[in-house]
Amino acid sequence: ERGGVTFGKGADMTDGVWGKLCALTSLSVCLWVCGAEDSAMENIVTEKKAEESHRQDSADLLIFILLLTLTILTIWLFKHRRFRFLHETGLAMIYGLLVGVVLRYGIHVPRDINNVALSCLVDSSPATLLVNVSGKFYEYTLKGEISASEISDVQDNEMLRKVTFDPEVFFNILLPPIIFHAGYSLKRRHFFRNMGSILAYAFVGTVVSCFIIGLLMYGCVTLMKHIGHLAGEFFFTDCLFFGAIVSATDPVTVLAIFNELQVDVDLYALLFGESVLNDAVAVVLSSSIVAYQPEGDNTHTFEAMAMLKSFGIFLGVFSGSFALGVATGVMTFTKLRDFQLLETALFFLMSWSTFLLAEACGFTGVVAVLFCGITQAHYTYNNLSPESQDRTKQLFELLNFLAENFIFSYMGLTLFTFQNHVFNPIFIVGAFVSSWLEMVQGLAVFLGRAANIYPLSFLLNLGRRNKISSNFQHMMMFAGLRGAMTFALSIRDTATYARQMMFSTTLLVVFFTVWICGGGTTQMLSCQRIRVGVDSDQDNSVGIGPDGVERRSTKQESAWLFRVWYNFDHNYLKPILTHSGPPLTATLPSCCGPLAQCLTSPQARENEVQLRDDDSDLILNDGDISLTYGDITVSTDVAGVHSSGAPASGMGVSSEEALDRELGISDHELVIRGTRLVLPMDDSEPPMPLDPHRHREL
Amino acid sequence: ERGGVTFGKGADMTDGVWGKLCALTSLSVCLWVCGAEDSAMENIVTEKKAEESHRQDSADLLIFILLLTLTILTIWLFKHRRFRFLHETGLAMIYGLLVGVVLRYGIHVPRDINNVALSCLVDSSPATLLVNVSGKFYEYTLKGEISASEISDVQDNEMLRKVTFDPEVFFNILLPPIIFHAGYSLKRRHFFRNMGSILAYAFVGTVVSCFIIGLLMYGCVTLMKHIGHLAGEFFFTDCLFFGAIVSATDPVTVLAIFNELQVDVDLYALLFGESVLNDAVAVVLSSSIVAYQPEGDNTHTFEAMAMLKSFGIFLGVFSGSFALGVATGVMTFTKLRDFQLLETALFFLMSWSTFLLAEACGFTGVVAVLFCGITQAHYTYNNLSPESQDRTKQLFELLNFLAENFIFSYMGLTLFTFQNHVFNPIFIVGAFVSSWLEMVQGLAVFLGRAANIYPLSFLLNLGRRNKISSNFQHMMMFAGLRGAMTFALSIRDTATYARQMMFSTTLLVVFFTVWICGGGTTQMLSCQRIRVGVDSDQDNSVGIGPDGVERRSTKQESAWLFRVWYNFDHNYLKPILTHSGPPLTATLPSCCGPLAQCLTSPQARENEVQLRDDDSDLILNDGDISLTYGDITVSTDVAGVHSSGAPASGMGVSSEEALDRELGISDHELVIRGTRLVLPMDDSEPPMPLDPHRHREL
Repeated sequence: ERGGVTFGKGADMTDGVWGKLCALTSLSVCLWVCGAEDSAMENIVTEKKAEESHRQDSADLLIFILLLTLTILTIWLFKHRRFRFLHETGLAMIYGLLVGVVLRYGIHVPRDINNVALSCLVDSSPATLLVNVSGKFYEYTLKGEISASEISDVQDNEMLRKVTFDPEVFFNILLPPIIFHAGYSLKRRHFFRNMGSILAYAFVGTVVSCFIIGLLMYGCVTLMKHIGHLAGEFFFTDCLFFGAIVSATDPVTVLAIFNELQVDVDLYALLFGESVLNDAVAVVLSSSIVAYQPEGDNTHTFEAMAMLKSFGIFLGVFSGSFALGVATGVMTFTKLRDFQLLETALFFLMSWSTFLLAEACGFTGVVAVLFCGITQAHYTYNNLSPESQDRTKQLFELLNFLAENFIFSYMGLTLFTFQNHVFNPIFIVGAFVSSWLEMVQGLAVFLGRAANIYPLSFLLNLGRRNKISSNFQHMMMFAGLRGAMTFALSIRDTATYARQMMFSTTLLVVFFTVWICGGGTTQMLSCQRIRVGVDSDQDNSVGIGPDGVERRSTKQESAWLFRVWYNFDHNYLKPILTHSGPPLTATLPSCCGPLAQCLTSPQARENEVQLRDDDSDLILNDGDISLTYGDITVSTDVAGVHSSGAPASGMGVSSEEALDRELGISDHELVIRGTRLVLPMDDSEPPMPLDPHRHREL
Repeated sequence: ERGGVTFGKGADMTDGVWGKLCALTSLSVCLWVCGAEDSAMENIVTEKKAEESHRQDSADLLIFILLLTLTILTIWLFKHRRFRFLHETGLAMIYGLLVGVVLRYGIHVPRDINNVALSCLVDSSPATLLVNVSGKFYEYTLKGEISASEISDVQDNEMLRKVTFDPEVFFNILLPPIIFHAGYSLKRRHFFRNMGSILAYAFVGTVVSCFIIGLLMYGCVTLMKHIGHLAGEFFFTDCLFFGAIVSATDPVTVLAIFNELQVDVDLYALLFGESVLNDAVAVVLSSSIVAYQPEGDNTHTFEAMAMLKSFGIFLGVFSGSFALGVATGVMTFTKLRDFQLLETALFFLMSWSTFLLAEACGFTGVVAVLFCGITQAHYTYNNLSPESQDRTKQLFELLNFLAENFIFSYMGLTLFTFQNHVFNPIFIVGAFVSSWLEMVQGLAVFLGRAANIYPLSFLLNLGRRNKISSNFQHMMMFAGLRGAMTFALSIRDTATYARQMMFSTTLLVVFFTVWICGGGTTQMLSCQRIRVGVDSDQDNSVGIGPDGVERRSTKQESAWLFRVWYNFDHNYLKPILTHSGPPLTATLPSCCGPLAQCLTSPQARENEVQLRDDDSDLILNDGDISLTYGDITVSTDVAGVHSSGAPASGMGVSSEEALDRELGISDHELVIRGTRLVLPMDDSEPPMPLDPHRHREL
């Protein structure tokens, strides 16, 4: 009996309720009837089965498409009426929730014979399983492990299981375009100006936040263990893992509002840059926490070697992904300007292959794609024809939009349809435990963020001339929303009890932050009296912000390392990799003449004389100005660029000014794109008479 | 033993060769050891396994991405040098073939323990299988049936199996954008002018071709059965099915060259329209042939009722899909002009939901998507903002390009990696049989096409004033390439022996037609002395073609039914569904005034006065001209539209002229896009001195 094959067929098809494990009656009789005359009928049955399953799949996918359509129509209404309290992602979640409730409680799909689940008792779980049915072989592929308690659910809720996606879909299909778009649309000028602070927030901040949350959660878990509310194992590494995934902030809601209201560009750059790099750090951090495997029997003790190894993995994977992304971004040196379709297709394929290459090499595809996007925006973008520049931007904008809203509506849906957390004992026993857990964990999340933002800002302010003011700090604290990345990381593995609890908690954290923090952004902005309506191209001309702190020249932040890099980039990398910038023949020492000749592209060479003139003018002028005016504050110069009033060496300022100008020019279109949403667009609609948001200052 | 579980592990891992069925040693021992201390290690092993599998998947996908990248780069080179003998699809196939050879013979992946395939003996094949491994449950999903002869292959060629996609991917992911793009980019003016002939070719032609090929193939099969070369069952319905799938022409190669050389627009419209509708007819035809199921024991006899049922299915599915596509296309009545991103996303989602809705309803998604595309191009396109018009066109152009090249490169790859036909006895026994089969089948395919084109053209010419000249007929005969649709239909089901033989043959037919017919298009054009370099906006002014046949006024072809439809469309549908066209208040009888007021959009109402003036001017002028000049041939008129010299009633001509003009205006951008490839584009490259294709006439 034990070595036999056990399978069960619920004979009761009308009421749709299947028995539990006991219904899996063990039958050891296998019919081996090779009926040639039956094969035709069997084929028909198999075809019908496949067709039925395909129809069901189409209908399920249609639910999501209609959800997205509904979201788009409602967003349009909101944008039209200038509602800002609910972002499209929050809306997508609400619609997802509603559909989830309907699917969970509203629809009872009558069961049919096709969904019979067999239980076959063997001693290994291979990737491919061959099943011998009456002399015919069927191939099965491994989907995953399920716990014993869910077996009845598997049979019971075929419908709910159908609308559940493979978690890897998020990581491998939906997340890459979102992350790539973030990198590709980074406002590079302000990003590079605040690079030091952004890197500090992203690296130090995320690690600190991860450990703080991990420790707090470990405290909670220990407490739960003492009072007996813990139904499974929950190790310190699990807590750390939770800390890592919850540290990935995604202020997409806040940034959308910042864009609409044209909030201070430095705050925008700090938040956006931090959140983008945050995601990358959190992904690598979580994978290196998973990789923490001390040797010996007790696998959850502290061991220095394993810890060092994890740290090594973190560094290795991060730098590997970084290098791969930058390398592919740089390599996309397209000369296909004449055929926009081919150019766009190539650009798209190269970005995707970066992801796949990194994954195939064992690095993190998402991180590689992020840096690929940044590099492509910096170099490849300049090589594209103007039409392809538009096409690629629009394409990734669309992909980002669709993927983001899909993820958020799926998040809403999964709160009710995800079986593992709905049927988890701790959720079934009582709502009390879970809600208490949620409150504490919510607190931990915020504490983690606070421990990240405030001390770091204090330290950074010691070195920054343009201080990060306290209202900026409050705002960054407030904008620590969790989003797509956190969700994708937490849904990726829901096999163990600890992970399931994490997933459920993460879901609630995301809901809370997106609705409360996202919805309260405008209130928070006006409460913190943060300047809105800033034209990002003129922000330097405003000397004193409303907070009374001098905030003009953030340039001193860019240290010598950055200046060195900028000079190298401007003089050597840009000319080699793009058609813009000065030709190499002008920047390389004369001894490298032949090399320079051969590396300079024909287009750059054609414009050589003109470019050389322009460029030397620029550099000389800038140098002249800063040398001449020295310590005096100059508000404008001929080119519309404002030199800083701080004491600085001529060359340093000149290169920074040139950087600013250059990045500013390339960014211009992105800036326009970003602010398009605020323009009064519908002529047929009269303007709101009582809309306070139309004032430039809240 | 029989009722037990049989599973086999090939102990020999070094040479990678697995035994045949005999290697599947039957072991009935199942270990039921619940080791709690082992669970952590087991989890790690499972994770490692999943990670390894994910890496492998990434690497496999990367192969395809790099294949596409390579294709794009080579296409660019070809376009740059103006090579026309090999189209991008042919090129993609060649690269696919090369990679297929390398994968098949070049790479030996060392087998590891993870790929163990178990053979589990049960008496049913459910969609979901639960496997009990040492007390843990794993979930498996049904992938499909495999024949007994392939079991060793399943175990042997994990690598080749990995690069094999689920056939449904083609039908549900890759084909819809291709077909939608075809519908969306249909040159509507010339399509509507030649509608009668196109419908005749598509419906009558495809059905005739299907039956001719089916009959010929049945003759071959009978012959093969007599000489004993047939190793399995091959019924008449199988032959008809083969006829149906091979009747789907896909002259993408020929049309690309037509576009580049600006070949006669009527020929272009005939070919393109025929091929687009052909696909739709072939899909529905093949599914209704599959649905032909006579009752009783002998399932392959002729039965009038089953035949009638199949015919009913054909009509039902086709008209259902048509109605659904048109309905969704019409419903996409977007008012989101101000938010281009939302607009584009909505447009994309609506097109996709058409496909899913049709599939969920049991209709054919591809057909629905085709008519959705045509309808959206006709109505929705006018409602979109200019930016979204560009965006949607570019998006679907890109998707079409990627999907098409992916399918063709996969076709090349699959010739060597598809296991079912490589290991099929008829292919292993000798190349002779297959090549002979191919020759005969090739002949049948061409005979089918000939039986389609020539008699139909004869009949159509009886009713057409603008005869389809014999060189056009030869060209259409020659351009009967098979492509993506044929491939997708044939790979969809490769379970039985007959289907496998069909698939292999289809593959060879596609290769042959794409390379030989596609490559010889320019030669064929010059051989048939078909006019090239025709500006599609001026083609009416050329009275006599180089073939000496009068070919100016195709308008008489459009019968009264079409005129009635056009008037209805222009006066009522367009005003209701788009912002263009005359306002309803002008076209509806005065008794319907309130209704007209409420249906007319604000934009249309704003432009009401201006539009009414324009429109009435147009109609009056046209009427005047045709009434005045009656039977006299007029070469030009004021508006640049050429009235026909045929006797016709004033109103009829006037509406056709208006149709022509209107469709022409809307088509203009598409025409420009289509001909963009011929413009001399690269300035840095000197023009080819010896390129004969630069002359306008070959």
